[in-house]
Amino acid sequence: MSEITDLLNDYSKEIKRIIDENLSTIIPNDLQEASIYLTNAGGKMIRPALTLMVSESVVGGKEGSLNSAAAIELIHTFSLIHDDIMDDDDVRRGVPAVHKVWGNGVAILSGDTLFSKAFELIITSDKTPIQNNQALATVADACVQICEGQALDISFEGRYDVSEEEYMDMIFKKTGALIAAASKVGAIMGGADDKVISTMYEYGELIGLAFQIQDDYLDVVGDEKYIGKPVGSDIAKGKMTLMVVKTLNEANEEDSQKLLKILKDSDSSKEDIDVAISIFEKYDSIQYTHDVALGNVNKAKELLKILPDSEAKNMLEKIADFVLERDL
Amino acid sequence: MSEITDLLNDYSKEIKRIIDENLSTIIPNDLQEASIYLTNAGGKMIRPALTLMVSESVVGGKEGSLNSAAAIELIHTFSLIHDDIMDDDDVRRGVPAVHKVWGNGVAILSGDTLFSKAFELIITSDKTPIQNNQALATVADACVQICEGQALDISFEGRYDVSEEEYMDMIFKKTGALIAAASKVGAIMGGADDKVISTMYEYGELIGLAFQIQDDYLDVVGDEKYIGKPVGSDIAKGKMTLMVVKTLNEANEEDSQKLLKILKDSDSSKEDIDVAISIFEKYDSIQYTHDVALGNVNKAKELLKILPDSEAKNMLEKIADFVLERDL
Repeated sequence: MSEITDLLNDYSKEIKRIIDENLSTIIPNDLQEASIYLTNAGGKMIRPALTLMVSESVVGGKEGSLNSAAAIELIHTFSLIHDDIMDDDDVRRGVPAVHKVWGNGVAILSGDTLFSKAFELIITSDKTPIQNNQALATVADACVQICEGQALDISFEGRYDVSEEEYMDMIFKKTGALIAAASKVGAIMGGADDKVISTMYEYGELIGLAFQIQDDYLDVVGDEKYIGKPVGSDIAKGKMTLMVVKTLNEANEEDSQKLLKILKDSDSSKEDIDVAISIFEKYDSIQYTHDVALGNVNKAKELLKILPDSEAKNMLEKIADFVLERDL
Repeated sequence: MSEITDLLNDYSKEIKRIIDENLSTIIPNDLQEASIYLTNAGGKMIRPALTLMVSESVVGGKEGSLNSAAAIELIHTFSLIHDDIMDDDDVRRGVPAVHKVWGNGVAILSGDTLFSKAFELIITSDKTPIQNNQALATVADACVQICEGQALDISFEGRYDVSEEEYMDMIFKKTGALIAAASKVGAIMGGADDKVISTMYEYGELIGLAFQIQDDYLDVVGDEKYIGKPVGSDIAKGKMTLMVVKTLNEANEEDSQKLLKILKDSDSSKEDIDVAISIFEKYDSIQYTHDVALGNVNKAKELLKILPDSEAKNMLEKIADFVLERDL
C-alpha cells in the first residue's frame, strides 16, 4: 500500500497549496485561522485524490482538475467542522475541534466560509463553462445529501427499528455522496463522456459505502493500534452500525433485548461488549458486514473496465482495496 | 409607497412558489420544515425583488431570473439562521428563531441545506452556462463576504476604537455585499453588458449601505411604532453604530467616557439614553448619519441613468428611496 500512500502524499501537497493560497485572503485573522486549521492538521485527502486520479484516467490530466479537487476537500472539511459542533465532539484529526478552539460562532462561520470558497474554486476552474456548471451542480447536490444524511443520522438517535435500507440511505448521503461526487467531478473535468461520468459516480458511491461499512466491521474485529480506538467502541457508544441494524432486524426477542440493553448502557464493560459481539456472531452479522463491504469494492473495481488501461486506472483499483483499510 | 409594497408582494409570491417547490424534496421532515420555516414567516423579499427588477430593466425580462432571485433569498435566509445561532437571538420575523424550535444541530443543517439549494437553483437557471457561472461566482463571493462581515462584527464586540472605515467595511460585507450581488445577478441574467453589470453592483452596494446606516439613524429619531422597537434600543444594547463610531472618533475625553459608560451599562435608563443622544447631537453625528445614508441613495439613483427608461427603472428609483424607510 505504500505506493498509494506515497501518491496520496504527493497529491495532498498540491491540494494543500491551492487551499492555502485560496484561504489566505480571508479576514479577520481568527476566521482565516479557523478556516485553514483542519487542513493543516492532516487528513489523507483521499477525496480530492480521487478527483485527480479519475481525471487522469480519462486522459484529461490532473492539472485542470486541481481547483475542483481542492473544492471537494473544502466541502469535506466544512462538513467535519459543522458535524463536530452538532455532535459536540472534542477532537478531530488529533487536535481540538474547531469549535473547541474558537467557539461555536467562528466555527459555524469558518464552515460557511469554506463552503463558499469551494464554489468559488470550482467556478474559477480553467475548464469550459459547461464543465464548470456540471461540476458545480454535482457538488451542490452532494452538499444537500450530506446535510440530509447528517439530519437522518440525528433522527436515528434512540431509534432501534431502523431498516437496512434506511441505514444504507443514511450512510450513502452522509459519506458516499461526496466521494461519488469527487469521482464524478474528476470525470467531468477530465472531459469524459456521459457514460463514463455516470460510471465514475457509481464507482465513487460503491467505495464510499464500502468505506463506511468497513468502518462498522473494523470496530469489532480490528486491531486497536490499527483502527486508532478501542475495539467495540461503537458498541460502547450505542452507535447504529450495519451489524446492529441487521442483528436487530433478525434476532429473537431475548437477544434483541440483551443487545439493546448493552447499546443503551452508557457504561458498558468489556464483558458487555463481548456479549454484544457474540450476538452479532450468532446472526452472522459480522461476516455479513464484511461481505457487503467487499462486494461493493469488487463491484467498484469491475466498473473500472470502462476506462482505458493506464497508471491512473491501476491506482483507482488500488484505492478501491485501500478503502477496506483505514482511514479516509 | 404602496406601489412598491404591492410590487414586492407580487414578486414575493413567485419567489415563494419556487422556494417551496425546491425545498419540498428535502428529507427528513424536520430538516425540511426547519428549512422552509422562515420563508413562511414573512419577510419583504426585497433582495430577490431587486434581482427581478434589474433583470427587467435591462430588457432581459424577469422569467429567466426567477431561479437566481430565489437563490439570493435562500442565501439571505441561511445567513439569518446561522447568525441567530451565533447571537443566540430568540425571535426572527416575529416567530421563534429556527434554533429555538429545532435545536442548534438541525438549525446549522437547515442553513447549510439552504446554502446548497441556492447554488443548485442558480446552476439550473435557464440561461447560458457563462451567465450561470458568472451569477454563481457573484453569489459565492458575496457569501464569503457575509461570513467575513459577521466575523468582523463579532470581533468588534468590546472594542470601542473601531474606525469609520472599519465600520463601513463591516456593514458592507454583512449587509451590502448580498444586496449588491442581488442587483448584479439581475443584470447578468438579464443579459446586460459588463458596464451595466458593474454599475448595477454599485447601485446595490449603495442602497445596501444606505439601508444599514439608516437603521442606525432611525434607532434614535424613529417612531417606536414605525421602527418596531423602542427608541434608543441600539444604545441600550451597546451596539456599534455609525453614530457611535463617529462620536467616539471625535469626542473629547469626558464625552467619550460618558458615552462609553452608557454603552457598556447593561441596564441603561431612559435618561442615560437621552444623555447618549445629546452627546451624538453635540458632535453632529445624527445628522451626519442621515446625510451618509441619503448621499448613498442619491448616488444610487444617479447610477440608474445608465438604464433605458422603463417601468422597472422607475421602480429601482423608488426602491432606492424605500430603503430609507423600514424594513428590508
